[in-house]
Order: sequence, then C-alpha cells, then structure tokens
Amino acid sequence: MVATRNPLNIGASARAMANFGFSRLRVVAPYDVAFREARSAVGAAPLLAEAEEFPRVADAVGDCTLVVGTTSVGHRELQHPIRRLEYGARLICRRLGTAPVALLFGSEKFGLSNDDLSHCHWLMRIPTVDRDLSMNLGQAVALCLYELARDPKAAAARPEKIKAASAGEIEQITRTLLEALGQSGYTNPLTEASTEEKVRRLVRRLAVAQRDVPVLLGMLRQMLWKMN
Amino acid sequence: MVATRNPLNIGASARAMANFGFSRLRVVAPYDVAFREARSAVGAAPLLAEAEEFPRVADAVGDCTLVVGTTSVGHRELQHPIRRLEYGARLICRRLGTAPVALLFGSEKFGLSNDDLSHCHWLMRIPTVDRDLSMNLGQAVALCLYELARDPKAAAARPEKIKAASAGEIEQITRTLLEALGQSGYTNPLTEASTEEKVRRLVRRLAVAQRDVPVLLGMLRQMLWKMN
Repeated sequence: MVATRNPLNIGASARAMANFGFSRLRVVAPYDVAFREARSAVGAAPLLAEAEEFPRVADAVGDCTLVVGTTSVGHRELQHPIRRLEYGARLICRRLGTAPVALLFGSEKFGLSNDDLSHCHWLMRIPTVDRDLSMNLGQAVALCLYELARDPKAAAARPEKIKAASAGEIEQITRTLLEALGQSGYTNPLTEASTEEKVRRLVRRLAVAQRDVPVLLGMLRQMLWKMN
Repeated sequence: MVATRNPLNIGASARAMANFGFSRLRVVAPYDVAFREARSAVGAAPLLAEAEEFPRVADAVGDCTLVVGTTSVGHRELQHPIRRLEYGARLICRRLGTAPVALLFGSEKFGLSNDDLSHCHWLMRIPTVDRDLSMNLGQAVALCLYELARDPKAAAARPEKIKAASAGEIEQITRTLLEALGQSGYTNPLTEASTEEKVRRLVRRLAVAQRDVPVLLGMLRQMLWKMN
C-alpha cells in the first residue's frame, strides 16, 4: 500500500488479507504513522503488527519477481499492458507458486503515481461500470484478494445437501391436505375429482424437503383434529 | 441493508453499487437516521438520496420473487441451503433477467437475525479462509456485487494490445548492441562468434515491444556515438 492516507483503509485491507489467507502486508510512506492501531483491522491485528514499512516502492518490491500495479483509470496514457482483474489474477496465481509477487495499491485520492507505476511489470484494472468513478481503497483490496483466492470450480452447480421428499411422502401430504380440505368444506363434491388433481399438482410444485414432511403432516393433522 | 449501525458502511455500499451498476438500495431500520449524508458514498450521492427506507424486512422485500440472505457463519444451525458466492451469484443472475431479487446484509456486529433469515429462500456465503472471522460489511457488499457483475469470459487469455517487435527489428537491435559491445571492448575477439550467439539469444528473451524498438536503438546509437 503506497502513500495511504487513511489508516482505516490499511486496517480494512489487513482484515481482507486475513479473510482470504494472505499474510505479508507492506506499507510504503503512509501518511499516518499510527496505522498499526487501526481499529478496522478486526481479527487481523497480528498481521498489521507484522506489516513492514518502507520509504520507497523500489525497497518494498525488491525481492519480488513480478510487480503488478492496480488502477481504476483506463484512459490514462500508460506505457503498460492493462489486464482485467479476472485475467490478471490468473496470471498472478500461476506465478505465486514459484516466486513472491507484489500487488501495489496507490493512495485514496491519486492512486499510484507515474513513478510508482514505472516499477510495475503490468497493471490490473477492476472491471467497474464507470471508469471515472474509482473504488473505495479497502473494497478494491478485498476484491483483488477475493479474485486471487476464488475457486472457479465453485461456480458449477453442486448437489444440494437438502434431500427432497419422496413421491410416497408427497402423496401422504396430498391425501392429508385433501382430507382437511374436504373436512373444512373447501371441496365441492361435484368437482371433487378435478380438485384432487389440482391439489396433487400444486403439492408437487412446492419442492418439499424430506425433513419438512413431518412438520407439514403435523400441521394438517392438528387442523383436522380441530375440525372434527 | 438491515439494522446497519455505521452509516459509513451504507455509503461505501452505495459506492460499490455505483461501481458495478446496481441502483436500488433499500435500508431497513438503520441505527443512524442521517445515513444519507455518509461521506463514504463517493460518486454515489444520488443513489443514496434515492435509497428507500423500511421498518421491517417483510416490507423491504415485498416485491421480490427471490430473497437471498448473506452470512459469514457456516456452522450455525440454519434451516436454509447455504451456497458459496461463486455459485449463488450465478443463480441470482439467472433470476435477475425476469424478476427483482433482494440481497440482504445484516448488521456489522450480529449479521442477519433468525427472524430476518426466515424471510430468505436461501443463504449465500463468501468463501473466506476462516469462517469465524467475518468480513467488513462494505467489503462484503462490494464482493457480492462484483461477483454478480463478473464476466467469466474475461478470465480467459486475450490477445495483448501491445505489439511485439518483428524478427527484423530484434535483429537490428542485436546488431547495434553487438556493435556497441565491440566498440566498448566488451567482446573478446577470440570468442566473438559465441558472444554473438549469446547476445542474439538474450535479446530474443527480452520480449521487446514494437514501440520500444526506436527507443532502444536510440540509446545504443547514442552510446556508440559517444564511444567513437
């Protein structure tokens, strides 16, 4: 984090690092020397205490083999490739396995300076709708770390843990509901057959979970008991 | 946003909504009635001004056909399916095309109450490393909206906009460098042939961009001129 003004943003970034399993925070020339006490570092106080402080970007990234700058600006005349977060994060992850990578965030007001950017191999951009509206710094850090930790396989559908009721159980609910409807006078004897079909279809549309079957049956039976 | 304590978090969420193209903010029973003045809503003041306020969750979600709660807690005894953000966001996006969806965020300290949760069809969890360490509210909102707006196709490699130098240009650089090395006394006449091959391979490993060719040639020619 380079020239960060608000220590709360350093704290919030430390919290996001703890949330997504990152541990080495480096701070370059922060405006507030008391950033280590930032209350926003909920659950990440040790990480913040171990943050390293450097006077210049060159010192902070010295041991890294890849240095990536972050920017919200798409139209600035930059002599760098700019990659979208989704793709840039993949490139970083591939490199992370073999060598340390630095991810640079500039100040809240001005972002990274041209001098800071000259230390970067390439730049990464969060795909916001309006490129002129920058993101909150703590939110931008959280997004980048989330994308780095994101599991693409998790986007695929997985079997539900909630077990659906069996056809027999659904029919049991249907019969009990029909009994209650008959008892209450809801069912017209002239149209009883078509009502039964309608109710049967309706119950099947409800997506009843197996664990809810006894609850539903209990409710219906209690109402039946009261009506008798 | 339900029972939010810190108005800065409402403002930061409004900013994230503007960042990712969402517009309808609804606030249920906020602790601070002056939330509309939150300075953290940089660039999202109109969105915050149009935020709707409701006394109860039921009123806030009344016109939605899908209500999704967010939670950091994985081990609570909940009678809801919990889906990871990557997968949950896909389900929400599919529904968003046809009907309004509500995404609920609870208070900073306690999250959504059991009563709030009872209005939800299912829950969504941000895949943090440690489930006991919750996220900052503004960051959590930003992550969920980012994942909803995220383009999976953008993760695939795309052709670089930066054009690589041609083989002819690379050879021109190689020849000029070799000339400068010879002029400087770097090259040993006994091993000249093997040096030339080494230099040729080295220059080809550099991944020189086309636009950098004249700059590199200019540097080498200037040094050659100075040495002659």
